[in-house]
Amino acid sequence: MGTGFDFELESESGPARAARFRTPHGTVETPAFMPVGTAATVKGLDPDELHTIGAQMILANTYHLHLRPGDELIRDFGGVHRFMGWDGTLLTDSGGFQVFSLEGLRTVSEDGVEFRSHLDGSTHVFTPERVMVIERNLGADVIMQFDHVIPGQSDEAAARDASERSVRWLARCMKALDSLRSDGASPISTARNFPRLPGTTFPLPAPSQPQALFPIVQGGIHATLRREATRAILDLADWIGFGVGGLSVGEAKPDMYRILEVLNGELPRDRPRYLMGVGFPEDLVEGVARGIDLFDCVAPTRMGRNGAAFTNDGRFNIKRAEFRTDPRPLDPECDCGACRRFSRGYIRHLFTADEMLGLRLLSLHNVHFLVRLMRDARAAIRADRFAAWSREWLTRYHSRSPVIA
Amino acid sequence: MGTGFDFELESESGPARAARFRTPHGTVETPAFMPVGTAATVKGLDPDELHTIGAQMILANTYHLHLRPGDELIRDFGGVHRFMGWDGTLLTDSGGFQVFSLEGLRTVSEDGVEFRSHLDGSTHVFTPERVMVIERNLGADVIMQFDHVIPGQSDEAAARDASERSVRWLARCMKALDSLRSDGASPISTARNFPRLPGTTFPLPAPSQPQALFPIVQGGIHATLRREATRAILDLADWIGFGVGGLSVGEAKPDMYRILEVLNGELPRDRPRYLMGVGFPEDLVEGVARGIDLFDCVAPTRMGRNGAAFTNDGRFNIKRAEFRTDPRPLDPECDCGACRRFSRGYIRHLFTADEMLGLRLLSLHNVHFLVRLMRDARAAIRADRFAAWSREWLTRYHSRSPVIA
Repeated sequence: MGTGFDFELESESGPARAARFRTPHGTVETPAFMPVGTAATVKGLDPDELHTIGAQMILANTYHLHLRPGDELIRDFGGVHRFMGWDGTLLTDSGGFQVFSLEGLRTVSEDGVEFRSHLDGSTHVFTPERVMVIERNLGADVIMQFDHVIPGQSDEAAARDASERSVRWLARCMKALDSLRSDGASPISTARNFPRLPGTTFPLPAPSQPQALFPIVQGGIHATLRREATRAILDLADWIGFGVGGLSVGEAKPDMYRILEVLNGELPRDRPRYLMGVGFPEDLVEGVARGIDLFDCVAPTRMGRNGAAFTNDGRFNIKRAEFRTDPRPLDPECDCGACRRFSRGYIRHLFTADEMLGLRLLSLHNVHFLVRLMRDARAAIRADRFAAWSREWLTRYHSRSPVIA
Repeated sequence: MGTGFDFELESESGPARAARFRTPHGTVETPAFMPVGTAATVKGLDPDELHTIGAQMILANTYHLHLRPGDELIRDFGGVHRFMGWDGTLLTDSGGFQVFSLEGLRTVSEDGVEFRSHLDGSTHVFTPERVMVIERNLGADVIMQFDHVIPGQSDEAAARDASERSVRWLARCMKALDSLRSDGASPISTARNFPRLPGTTFPLPAPSQPQALFPIVQGGIHATLRREATRAILDLADWIGFGVGGLSVGEAKPDMYRILEVLNGELPRDRPRYLMGVGFPEDLVEGVARGIDLFDCVAPTRMGRNGAAFTNDGRFNIKRAEFRTDPRPLDPECDCGACRRFSRGYIRHLFTADEMLGLRLLSLHNVHFLVRLMRDARAAIRADRFAAWSREWLTRYHSRSPVIA
């Protein structure tokens, strides 16, 4: 495995796995949920809060940071870690998902994707080579390949085309990254040195050199394509870890589960597997049950800003009138900073009065909920009772107890 | 002095005073700045952050909380302290300032003010008696009398009318509060008991019984009226502390300073003096120099949300393009949670990208700045060098060094 990275499988419980993923910025205990810091900030939260919650690895978006504030500016600040004050493990996606979502604003060719910025309409081109430069400027620990993303219900021909192109783009990413690396020092360590004023300490070390490139397995809901893609990817190199893309993008849940089961049999057991863009609490549990180690999703913060709170009994919206006089915490079983201190009645008031603290508290609670859910799953795996734990958890979550619903 | 309250004068340095104001929710070291929690939240900040910053006393607005979520609901939650999770000292204003600002939406009579809610147009009446009930429901440690507020440039006849009415309303507040107190238990302790779920702890004790009613000295910029008002107020009772109202409402600064000097000679030395709605950093220093102990203002959070940062070298707006590549903290001399960890370049990015964390960080910094400024003033008073300290501080602040400006 590449310098600075290590994946130690600790326990298995059926296909579910507990492991320790070591990176240049610390160890990630898996299974784990990665909060999403789209614009180099997990919306509404402070990096210290993420540590307190127990988050060990977060994600930032290449597409968004390239457009604003610009990856070269972030390089000059010492990389995303230093820029945003996050000293844990960091992953950047490749922008593939975002640029392929720009329906009508993009042109796809074998070379790459030309697209117009959603911010100002300016024209940009993402190719595998260009994305490697950008992700190198951003300086995350794990960087995702540039891939061709298609809708979940795509037919086999479209899925094959995109999947095979993704493998060709992976080879180009590899080659580009090798060439960037052989240029010598990382762009970050050669970035102009900003003056540091006396008495001022920015406690984070400069980002480490090593970056792990993760391939992304595509192939839609077609088991054959997924198998072929995995084998083609494995033929290219000895990868540090694997992304699973193109799921939770509109396909039916049973299709997603079936594909995860196929991939569980195809991907090397001793490497981390990251299910991209997933998801909701139940999706995480179903993913762990099928051998997935890492997840990310904007749902906990996005839904939190809209008033939705996750609990083990399902989801509810704090804005509902019934919570006006409710003195209970959002989730009586939760020990997050919102639930330890504030009532539903107070948080509902904050939403009604359009107060920022309400958005903060629900974002904090929901991110904490998913991080803790994966911690609980991990404990169940280590006790070799994951199947029973997940069955109980899913039954309860889907039953939506009348107290909450 | 009333049960639960004590004001211990520690040092004087000219008219400037350092003291300890003890209340049922802790000791406030003065001079002190009170952050404003309009709707039972200091906008963008968490009560834990307020403690970390060193805030010991905060303010909540009677007008806003009466309208939303309603003072009776807050009473049922155990008072504002419990409702918002703040266990330090708390003060509520009387709503006078707000209802008199509702030009065209209010009718004033000797009995009180009828006004229409800025939220939904509903009609409400504030009288001295009604405001005492509301402030008792809110349960703050210090509650302000209902007063008649007028514009800063009002002529003597208008100022006399409002000032004399305010004294009459003070007498009615006193009587109403005595009557509420003799009813026995506080509304909060008789509020219906909310169930507490097992395992859930809301760590705050129920608010204490004693509440200190502060009179408000009015009289505009007319020294004679201010003297008459003070004497009339002193004739009514042995007050725990005093509010100074009707300043920083449009009058010229020299007028404000002159009136503060008059009041410094009139108000008892051994009681706290609170200059309402003031203010900006320089106003606080000028107020301390004239014997003021407590201040409040929405400026640090409101201006922070607009991108303005306070420093000892003056104010600047983080949104300016020059800060895009600036790796320094907002204020190199500051040790707040924003300045210890984040660069101007990053915070500017957060504002450009409309990210909540930017609003949080500038609110945190600005509130910290004013709290620390008063801590520094206090240290200078205790060292009996306040005059030199304030001269140096004001010279530097007004010079706006080219680094910042």
